[in-house]
Amino acid sequence: MQSKEYLRFKELVEEHLLYFLPEVDHKSITLYESMTYSLQAGGKLLRPVLLLAACDFCGGEEKLALPYACAIEYIHTYSLIHDDLPAMDDDDLRRGIPTNHKVFGEAIAILAGDGLLTSAFEAMNKDMLLYFDNTEKLKRRVRAVYEISKGAGCRGMIAGQVADMETENKQCSKELLDYIHVNKTAALIKAAVRAGAHLAGADKKTLGELDEYAENLGLAFQIADDILDIDGDVEKLGKNTGVDLIKKKSTYPCLYGLEESKLRVRELTDNAKRVMEPYYDNAEFFVELAEELANRVK
Amino acid sequence: MQSKEYLRFKELVEEHLLYFLPEVDHKSITLYESMTYSLQAGGKLLRPVLLLAACDFCGGEEKLALPYACAIEYIHTYSLIHDDLPAMDDDDLRRGIPTNHKVFGEAIAILAGDGLLTSAFEAMNKDMLLYFDNTEKLKRRVRAVYEISKGAGCRGMIAGQVADMETENKQCSKELLDYIHVNKTAALIKAAVRAGAHLAGADKKTLGELDEYAENLGLAFQIADDILDIDGDVEKLGKNTGVDLIKKKSTYPCLYGLEESKLRVRELTDNAKRVMEPYYDNAEFFVELAEELANRVK
Repeated sequence: MQSKEYLRFKELVEEHLLYFLPEVDHKSITLYESMTYSLQAGGKLLRPVLLLAACDFCGGEEKLALPYACAIEYIHTYSLIHDDLPAMDDDDLRRGIPTNHKVFGEAIAILAGDGLLTSAFEAMNKDMLLYFDNTEKLKRRVRAVYEISKGAGCRGMIAGQVADMETENKQCSKELLDYIHVNKTAALIKAAVRAGAHLAGADKKTLGELDEYAENLGLAFQIADDILDIDGDVEKLGKNTGVDLIKKKSTYPCLYGLEESKLRVRELTDNAKRVMEPYYDNAEFFVELAEELANRVK
Repeated sequence: MQSKEYLRFKELVEEHLLYFLPEVDHKSITLYESMTYSLQAGGKLLRPVLLLAACDFCGGEEKLALPYACAIEYIHTYSLIHDDLPAMDDDDLRRGIPTNHKVFGEAIAILAGDGLLTSAFEAMNKDMLLYFDNTEKLKRRVRAVYEISKGAGCRGMIAGQVADMETENKQCSKELLDYIHVNKTAALIKAAVRAGAHLAGADKKTLGELDEYAENLGLAFQIADDILDIDGDVEKLGKNTGVDLIKKKSTYPCLYGLEESKLRVRELTDNAKRVMEPYYDNAEFFVELAEELANRVK
């Protein structure tokens, strides 16, 4: 993602990414090292950037949204660490470097994931304590955290991961594949955008539009990832390709073919753009981002 | 725990334990089954009971504390599921039945743990939304969730588990053993009591006393558990004994001997009781509980 705005948000997140982690005792240094190893592995920071952008778009102060932006990256990172474990996807490579358990061992990787997930909520709740004399802002934060907890939870990301896991080596219906994509990937992306909007006190209409944008973007993003798993360059991706095929995972290209999948990415991207285009210049970031993500598999 | 008051709180928690879990889709039924399998395995429910008791003691309505009480049991249960995994303690038996991964497989057990942890925060944050017209009660809830997130996190329970894991097969100093106990066990017990007190709007003095009680109780509880691992009855405990010795874990009996450990349980129990005794009848629950827990290893 190369847009100036994206890079600005990304830099802001990078600068603060470790800041909202709890201060750990030197006796827990391995835990901290393991958590920060994965956090600093150079991801796209898509979710935190979207959170900040949504907050900014709705007129909020992006800097005040940073604890929530970083928290959602903690959550995303924990999910990758656990997903890579031998008992799950058993991946050795992530973001171009060895996966967490390859470096720190499985036990620490499990605990680092747990630590990041808990730290996300600790950071957000700690931030709430600062708004006791501004009830309106406090309520916005409560709403934001609720969105994030839902998106990350058993009606969101985790539901998608369980369904994904359960369909390995099995025939998967188109309906179930949609369910997996909506939950595994789109739910947390939606939560990021919705949380950012809530922090800025967005009205229902704007919230609904951002939600629709994020759902389409999230689905396009996952299908593109599935395409890249077949078609992509290991070095550019920073992770192994062909993994889905080996594990007999049901993916969009697998059920619909490569061309049909690319068309679907295009369609979802156009849907996403269409929601935001009426905002013209104000929504430039969102329109460009959708286009850039789609262009990965043009 | 047989006191009438304990059983009353426990029953209240049992009745509501599944109520605050998010409603899951039928496609996530395995996840739900795995989560509830461990939740309903018949634990002591010590942490939620303590949370309700502390709330009640400080003049709060115990029923309104239920989402937080159940959430802390979700957290405790997730920690047991992950702790039992092959990569961690590799335990087959917990609360008298096969451990989660023995029944559902490792992948689902990891996700069930993640699901319970996230559900805890989802449940608490959802409850906060009900208090938007009562700012004082909303603030009390924010304080309570922060306590729980700290106690469960990288400066609490998880720090203790990492240190515990790292000292396996190694010589452990007395200082490090204290660190493990304080964090692995006492931190979440303290968080339970502090959260309950916060929900009732307790003053600093009471909060400090309950904190001191809980720290002593938590430490006594962990040492007693270590003693029972050597001395206890598998059937009564519902888990295998002798496990710490096999794994060469550093425990209190291992560093200090059995008699010295029993004396330490007595001393910590007396400390806990001493803090609460000035409240006479009002603190009967807390005094009796400390005594009962200590009596397991008399």
